[in-house]
Amino acid sequence: MPIALTATQALAALRAGTLTSERLVSACLERIAEREPHLHAWVEVQASQALEQARACDRLPATRPLHGLPLGVKDVLDVQGFPTRCQSPIHAGARPGLDAACVAAARRAGAIILGKTATSEFAYVTPASTRNPHHPDHTPGGSSSGSAAAVAAQMVPLALATQTGGSTIRPAAYCGIVGFKPSFGLINRAGLKSVAESLDTIGLMARSVDDVALLAGVLAYRPLSMPAASAVSVHGPRIAFCPGFLQAHAQADAVAHLHEAAERLAAAGARLSRVELPEALEHLASDQALVMEFEAARALLPEQHAHPDLLSPALRGRLARGWSHAWADYRQALDRAAWGRRQLDRVFAQYDAILTYSACGQAPATLSHAGDSVMNRAWTLLGLPCLALPTAMGASGLPLGIQWVGAPGRDEQLLGLARWAERRLSGGA
Amino acid sequence: MPIALTATQALAALRAGTLTSERLVSACLERIAEREPHLHAWVEVQASQALEQARACDRLPATRPLHGLPLGVKDVLDVQGFPTRCQSPIHAGARPGLDAACVAAARRAGAIILGKTATSEFAYVTPASTRNPHHPDHTPGGSSSGSAAAVAAQMVPLALATQTGGSTIRPAAYCGIVGFKPSFGLINRAGLKSVAESLDTIGLMARSVDDVALLAGVLAYRPLSMPAASAVSVHGPRIAFCPGFLQAHAQADAVAHLHEAAERLAAAGARLSRVELPEALEHLASDQALVMEFEAARALLPEQHAHPDLLSPALRGRLARGWSHAWADYRQALDRAAWGRRQLDRVFAQYDAILTYSACGQAPATLSHAGDSVMNRAWTLLGLPCLALPTAMGASGLPLGIQWVGAPGRDEQLLGLARWAERRLSGGA
Repeated sequence: MPIALTATQALAALRAGTLTSERLVSACLERIAEREPHLHAWVEVQASQALEQARACDRLPATRPLHGLPLGVKDVLDVQGFPTRCQSPIHAGARPGLDAACVAAARRAGAIILGKTATSEFAYVTPASTRNPHHPDHTPGGSSSGSAAAVAAQMVPLALATQTGGSTIRPAAYCGIVGFKPSFGLINRAGLKSVAESLDTIGLMARSVDDVALLAGVLAYRPLSMPAASAVSVHGPRIAFCPGFLQAHAQADAVAHLHEAAERLAAAGARLSRVELPEALEHLASDQALVMEFEAARALLPEQHAHPDLLSPALRGRLARGWSHAWADYRQALDRAAWGRRQLDRVFAQYDAILTYSACGQAPATLSHAGDSVMNRAWTLLGLPCLALPTAMGASGLPLGIQWVGAPGRDEQLLGLARWAERRLSGGA
Repeated sequence: MPIALTATQALAALRAGTLTSERLVSACLERIAEREPHLHAWVEVQASQALEQARACDRLPATRPLHGLPLGVKDVLDVQGFPTRCQSPIHAGARPGLDAACVAAARRAGAIILGKTATSEFAYVTPASTRNPHHPDHTPGGSSSGSAAAVAAQMVPLALATQTGGSTIRPAAYCGIVGFKPSFGLINRAGLKSVAESLDTIGLMARSVDDVALLAGVLAYRPLSMPAASAVSVHGPRIAFCPGFLQAHAQADAVAHLHEAAERLAAAGARLSRVELPEALEHLASDQALVMEFEAARALLPEQHAHPDLLSPALRGRLARGWSHAWADYRQALDRAAWGRRQLDRVFAQYDAILTYSACGQAPATLSHAGDSVMNRAWTLLGLPCLALPTAMGASGLPLGIQWVGAPGRDEQLLGLARWAERRLSGGA
């Protein structure tokens, strides 16, 4: 079944000549035809165009790093030939002339753009109608709901997402896939609909750590040569185990699961120490919300000015809050983030990564909101690389996982460590 | 003559009922009709639409902060109803559905958008054909050549510009107007064609410090309540006089003029000390160039991928250099910038502002390149607020000026100090 292959596996098969891009794309399209009516992961799929590109790809040698691999793109990133709707009627007809920079990079590397995936309104509030592939009454998380659901449902092996609060890590956790939010600044944002320019980050989704590393290397324009798993294991990664951080927001099964994962990693050779992060760092989750509200109100002024009636009431309320924040409070939030980075520099001087919660628990049983991003917001504000790793299925049949947080700019190290952990913890979805 | 009024003066007249927006806009349009054939400051003017908006404005009470004031907008910022051409055939037909956030803010405050002003290709290399209003054989500077020339030639009292290297301060200096590049992050960038996201900053141009402060307050969504001139003068501003910084790049008349301005300010009560900045800070000018090349190559990948033949050879060369930089060198440049900010924190603990060169000298006698941005690049990389103040005419009939550089986020203080200085130094153009 080509749809069950990870991107890395599919690429190996394409290179070995045992799979064609046309067959892979066809299989993905069939899977979409079958499951999309229940999942609502996509806002537009261009099947014939994707097949045509796949056939063109099959006529070339399979040398490019994403040769013939299908890709879904969150509908806040420009893709030539598709409108960038941002889940808003204001942008329903907005046709960009060019790809976003990250989309162009993936396309140049051989990726086949299948279509645009569903998002919350402006990747912020008011979720799309996407459902969790593991249970139709549960949210897939947001705002990258479509990318997460599509990858989890094996409609596509790779997808582009974004994270301004928790929009990559949380849906990846809820859907049981690997989500990677790189360091702030690693991936160029040209062609992304900006909501909060201090926070907006291109995120990546796939079904293995190797896959997100492959895609991240293409988008960063340099192979992210992760330390080989064997090299990591010789000495054992140094892990700051932080179950106390924001624990008040974690559900019992998430806490139990994080401890269990830590025990298994320690047994596998990780040099794992329980670390209590400064309590004041927890406040950064609120600071992130303030910064996002403040900046979103300003970034979306054109929409508010020209089409106030076409914004959802929930978004209007959030933007009103953004206008109510004082400049001094906004600056203070950014100053606390700078302070937080210095605090964490000390942690990363001793440890390779932080091990913490990827979400408060399993995906909640609702479609009217996309769950709580509190486990993600501080890390986004700090600009640190984060990776959601699915590690188990919970009691209610929904995925559980863990989150790795790395030092700023040390994305390769984080990916290497996550791969090491992935091989020692049984996969989720 | 309405065209000779500063924005602040025109606003007072509009409020007093001695001027109408229609008369002001008409006068600007007549001035454009007269001088544009020689200057090439604009890429598109929508005269009838502007007049219609002016008449609509005249039917309202003159309460809004930019009520009825004409504005020029650099052609890398989205304005509804105009293409955002970026001086590139690739974007000749690119029609945005909405204004950029800063344009929407100005429009909501009552500004009348006259048209789009000329820029270099993607606000980077390969200048437009704009000429310096003070001498047609001299460059007006770049990349905000059209905004600077239009304001200097009294075609419009206010214009929006951008600065990624020196694209606001240098053309303002060459054209003898006030240019203000606010702190990085003060003005939202949604709807700006991104070239280098770590550097791109919305800049402001006008013919007085009060005018740029008025416009900056609108774009920052809060009145920038500058310390009253009298309050500044009681104790005298504390000025770090830095004629040694990058002096090797300064022409003799620029050096002599900076010393002369310093003497006059000291005589007027400024507490002025000669400060030698750490020599390593000079390297930040090269670091800025590296960061810009690195990021521009990535931001403009879509253009390179889809239309390589439609990029100018000079830009292609610059982008090739961007691709040649190693990631580690890019990170090091950003790290040196962080180090530089800490060095300057010490300076700003003792001084209200740095007084330095706004350009290497008068506008050079060429139209094929836009002059040297070396006096601006380090400050842009550092994200500090900068203000170009015209202070004299040089021997060749072209303007000379000075540059004020302030502490990050303390834009109001810098504007207050610049206004204090403006009243003590005879104006330029």
